[in-house]
Amino acid sequence: MSKPLVGILMGSDSDLPVMEKAAEVLTQLGIGWEMDISSAHRLPDKTAVYARTARERGIEVLICGAGMAAHLAGVVASHTTLPVIGVPLKSGALAGVDALYATVQMPPGIPVATVAVDGGKNAGYLAASILSIKRPELADRLEQFRAATRQELEEKSSELQTRLKQA
Amino acid sequence: MSKPLVGILMGSDSDLPVMEKAAEVLTQLGIGWEMDISSAHRLPDKTAVYARTARERGIEVLICGAGMAAHLAGVVASHTTLPVIGVPLKSGALAGVDALYATVQMPPGIPVATVAVDGGKNAGYLAASILSIKRPELADRLEQFRAATRQELEEKSSELQTRLKQA
Amino acid sequence: MSKPLVGILMGSDSDLPVMEKAAEVLTQLGIGWEMDISSAHRLPDKTAVYARTARERGIEVLICGAGMAAHLAGVVASHTTLPVIGVPLKSGALAGVDALYATVQMPPGIPVATVAVDGGKNAGYLAASILSIKRPELADRLEQFRAATRQELEEKSSELQTRLKQA
Amino acid sequence: MSKPLVGILMGSDSDLPVMEKAAEVLTQLGIGWEMDISSAHRLPDKTAVYARTARERGIEVLICGAGMAAHLAGVVASHTTLPVIGVPLKSGALAGVDALYATVQMPPGIPVATVAVDGGKNAGYLAASILSIKRPELADRLEQFRAATRQELEEKSSELQTRLKQA
Amino acid sequence: MSKPLVGILMGSDSDLPVMEKAAEVLTQLGIGWEMDISSAHRLPDKTAVYARTARERGIEVLICGAGMAAHLAGVVASHTTLPVIGVPLKSGALAGVDALYATVQMPPGIPVATVAVDGGKNAGYLAASILSIKRPELADRLEQFRAATRQELEEKSSELQTRLKQA
Amino acid sequence: MSKPLVGILMGSDSDLPVMEKAAEVLTQLGIGWEMDISSAHRLPDKTAVYARTARERGIEVLICGAGMAAHLAGVVASHTTLPVIGVPLKSGALAGVDALYATVQMPPGIPVATVAVDGGKNAGYLAASILSIKRPELADRLEQFRAATRQELEEKSSELQTRLKQA
Amino acid sequence: MSKPLVGILMGSDSDLPVMEKAAEVLTQLGIGWEMDISSAHRLPDKTAVYARTARERGIEVLICGAGMAAHLAGVVASHTTLPVIGVPLKSGALAGVDALYATVQMPPGIPVATVAVDGGKNAGYLAASILSIKRPELADRLEQFRAATRQELEEKSSELQTRLKQA
Amino acid sequence: MSKPLVGILMGSDSDLPVMEKAAEVLTQLGIGWEMDISSAHRLPDKTAVYARTARERGIEVLICGAGMAAHLAGVVASHTTLPVIGVPLKSGALAGVDALYATVQMPPGIPVATVAVDGGKNAGYLAASILSIKRPELADRLEQFRAATRQELEEKSSELQTRLKQA
Repeated sequence: MSKPLVGILMGSDSDLPVMEKAAEVLTQLGIGWEMDISSAHRLPDKTAVYARTARERGIEVLICGAGMAAHLAGVVASHTTLPVIGVPLKSGALAGVDALYATVQMPPGIPVATVAVDGGKNAGYLAASILSIKRPELADRLEQFRAATRQELEEKSSELQTRLKQA
Repeated sequence: MSKPLVGILMGSDSDLPVMEKAAEVLTQLGIGWEMDISSAHRLPDKTAVYARTARERGIEVLICGAGMAAHLAGVVASHTTLPVIGVPLKSGALAGVDALYATVQMPPGIPVATVAVDGGKNAGYLAASILSIKRPELADRLEQFRAATRQELEEKSSELQTRLKQA
Repeated sequence: MSKPLVGILMGSDSDLPVMEKAAEVLTQLGIGWEMDISSAHRLPDKTAVYARTARERGIEVLICGAGMAAHLAGVVASHTTLPVIGVPLKSGALAGVDALYATVQMPPGIPVATVAVDGGKNAGYLAASILSIKRPELADRLEQFRAATRQELEEKSSELQTRLKQA
Repeated sequence: MSKPLVGILMGSDSDLPVMEKAAEVLTQLGIGWEMDISSAHRLPDKTAVYARTARERGIEVLICGAGMAAHLAGVVASHTTLPVIGVPLKSGALAGVDALYATVQMPPGIPVATVAVDGGKNAGYLAASILSIKRPELADRLEQFRAATRQELEEKSSELQTRLKQA
Repeated sequence: MSKPLVGILMGSDSDLPVMEKAAEVLTQLGIGWEMDISSAHRLPDKTAVYARTARERGIEVLICGAGMAAHLAGVVASHTTLPVIGVPLKSGALAGVDALYATVQMPPGIPVATVAVDGGKNAGYLAASILSIKRPELADRLEQFRAATRQELEEKSSELQTRLKQA
Repeated sequence: MSKPLVGILMGSDSDLPVMEKAAEVLTQLGIGWEMDISSAHRLPDKTAVYARTARERGIEVLICGAGMAAHLAGVVASHTTLPVIGVPLKSGALAGVDALYATVQMPPGIPVATVAVDGGKNAGYLAASILSIKRPELADRLEQFRAATRQELEEKSSELQTRLKQA
Repeated sequence: MSKPLVGILMGSDSDLPVMEKAAEVLTQLGIGWEMDISSAHRLPDKTAVYARTARERGIEVLICGAGMAAHLAGVVASHTTLPVIGVPLKSGALAGVDALYATVQMPPGIPVATVAVDGGKNAGYLAASILSIKRPELADRLEQFRAATRQELEEKSSELQTRLKQA
Repeated sequence: MSKPLVGILMGSDSDLPVMEKAAEVLTQLGIGWEMDISSAHRLPDKTAVYARTARERGIEVLICGAGMAAHLAGVVASHTTLPVIGVPLKSGALAGVDALYATVQMPPGIPVATVAVDGGKNAGYLAASILSIKRPELADRLEQFRAATRQELEEKSSELQTRLKQA
């Protein structure tokens, strides 16, 4: 795989099923990534070092997923000026509303680019959009993906029309 | 004032009106405190150092107030094993629900003792309760405070009865 | 087991699965505890007597778990000046938001140290943090637990790296 | 005034503006009432004694108003088998949703008849409805009130029609 | 069974599992009841006639259960001055919050005594409390029920103590 | 004014400021309307008669505005098969969320076409859209309104560009 | 089937189970419909063209179902002056509240007639109500449906009475 | 001003006070921007053309602010593969929760980088972070801004310490 441009962090290995979707999207678009488990609360120093050294290591976008009082994206954002994408994860009794608020409602100066609850896939696409501002070929690939999506939806539309006519 | 036992942190000087109430309660109960402005996001290192050195400096309880995606209490708690009290502050469009969720929904291992939104006063009383487990005279003072509260409420009750009889 | 320092109360035996986690944490940290079922509404007198006599019986922290219109922690706090930790429990249609609000939004003077919905584990850790202010060995054990947690997370991180390299 | 049949309790004198409306409705319907300030948390014993002795003192319905983690109605209900009406009060950052949940979501066996947030007036009408099951003349007065309400609304309707024709 | 004093209405036969619990409580307390399916929206006339004739038929309390935009209790209350108990039912995507708001937030003059979401049991107990204001024997039975509840909880407490000692 | 095609109902004269906006839109589009105060709870019979006779009186769309546990639109819809538009009104502690849920979450068979909280204007436009299915000239007028809206927004855009260039 | 008067759109084929219920209701009432998959975000042009040409193709009502940040109904409404019915769909962590707010809270000028979350059936009935303003026979069929609904509920009521007597 | 790299769109001129803050931040960081009023619903074609041509015109990031059922960011994102930042605006009865959900809960494939409700400032900072991945001097300026922020907060901390010593 090519040199990682995107760093994917999550607070626990139980977050993998959602966060792997970000990696899958990046792989499909030919974008290198790295992925690690860290935690704003349990490994604050590792998290800080990771965030602080990301730019110099060639990382251009960070994706952070966490649940409940999700602090990971915010803590990472406080240690880097790279764009940080936050993925609020659904877990516990409040089912992700807590993680959404804890991720998106950041104070002025330290933004987190928040996507939908459990929005691992969109974190990948958003990272690709960001990377595309300096890589025209990536903009093309994103357009191709959109075209493929349109195609796929048109086919489902056709199938539905066929099914309806047969009914 | 006596040696500080309680450290009060807030993310911005606009949080002072609520957080000063914690200090007032502590002063009334004869408990020394210190107060500072730090920020989980804007001064992460100062915040970490403050939390890590608190116990050795003689601090026994930490009170942290923050609004919106309130990370201050959680970040402080990740750097100390002292009890950390979180005060979610009402600010912004979500009016404190965001701060409440971001403060109370901490993951296993790093608890934050959360009080009501804008509950500066109760943060002070909770700190005093905690300190009272090794200071019997503080337990007495808390009992006296409770008795005074009861007295005050009884007087309001009497005033109401008088007013009702005159009506 | 050593003399109980923490009293764990719950409103119903159906709350045991969550509340036992508090006890497990305390046991791991070598802290004695007692556990009982009482109810703010169904056994108000027993609850009041329990809370009032806790300090003189040597209890230093109380942990109370209840669901729905969770009054147990608040009622216990009204009868003692010991620190009271509230665990809102997920149950019924509102899934714990009701219990969270009913536990955390206490009026000035009677604080409840609230942890996350179903946060039995963190109630145990918070109790240990509180007890650590007069027991240096407990502060050490909490630090060791944190180190173990860090270790465990680092191992999961290593496993993930291994898995990613093999993929 | 006639012998009190309804006992109105509130947690603080700041609750008077809402709770007085219950009293006004009762007075209009010729129903005797008493009113007092007590508090589930600050005066738990007075509250318990008040609730326990209410029936023998001739009280038939209790109305309890409280805000935030509103426990007053629930605590009163735990000490009496009289019908208890709960009025959740709007106060603090959560603006009454907390009080609503803390009042209405009572566990099986100890019901609280909850009315709207700040619904002092309806607490009075509900008390009158309850009392009407043994006082036919009260049922008549409630019917008259309803007729008056209908009349008043019909007049507003007529005024609107007049205004619309002139426009 | 004795003459019905309580009328239980529900909007659909799918509401039976919750609403039957109200009937069971009443039966246990020796209170006669009747139960029917009606609907504020699908059978508005039947509902209105039922509510209007309830008092003259000897009914003293009405219990109404409905889900979603739950109008049944409010519509029944608009046609009678008897006490109306509303049971918000959990159903659909909003899981009962909609039914709670639609039941409890009644405008001045037409109160609905609201219990917890899916609180069928408490609707039965509240009805019994109301009926007890003119039936001393019912007050006694409610006290006996409370004593039995206390007894049951004390036994669970004892079992827990035994279990803990054996562990 | 031309013969009324739209009937506008509201539960109280305090709802006029919002509901008049529906009438203003209709007037602008040359659509006749009538407006009255009724109430699902206080004037249930008048409301039922109004709804039942609306179609035969030539009314084609009904607009109903109510706040809190807003039942007006639902009750009207239960008495007519005409399209009923519900306007949830902001009032009371829950600020319109209660009215929104009580209006939109109607059970199968009795729909209410719900617009935004305080959406009086859109109720007018929605009524016009509905009426336009049998009146081509109304479709034209709606298109003209849209064109005017576009024009207005384009002008605001131009003003902003001018202002920005001058800055 | 007769010429389509109602166009049913949905954002994904996973929305079919809910949206087909709208079609079933229309079929039962003898109303022609067409159904297609489009998407405000993935097929914006197809969606715009569909909406813009709907009226000239003879469509009189549009029904749009979408979940999460549901934009489909609003985007369709921005391209036509026909009445647009929005069906918020339950999906993802926020379980439909997001779709409800994103559908109903439309700005002035572009209304969406919103029904309950997952309210496919009511979307069908609302469409029929709208169409009935120019088709008296449809008004009759809707009345017959209501009568059948009443009949069905009365039968369930009778079954319950029979069951209760046998118990 | 230098050539615009960021396009700022808002749905109405009433959104200017919040959205201008994004522009101010960009100006402070020496980043060129353009700003316009468009609307997903009232000017769908202009909005689509704007989004589709943005990349070829040299725009690298888009910022979109809208309130209520905020569709602007999502609609823009459906017409471009550039990164789109969404600013949910507080307006209307739901006070921004509606706009937050309608902006952040985007379906897979079309991400919107959402910031806090009324987070105009952070939209500017996030845009700058994104632009910094291809402009090292911008990364430096962002670091300088962070250092200035730290400095400012340290000064407020010092002022507080001075004030506390004088008290």
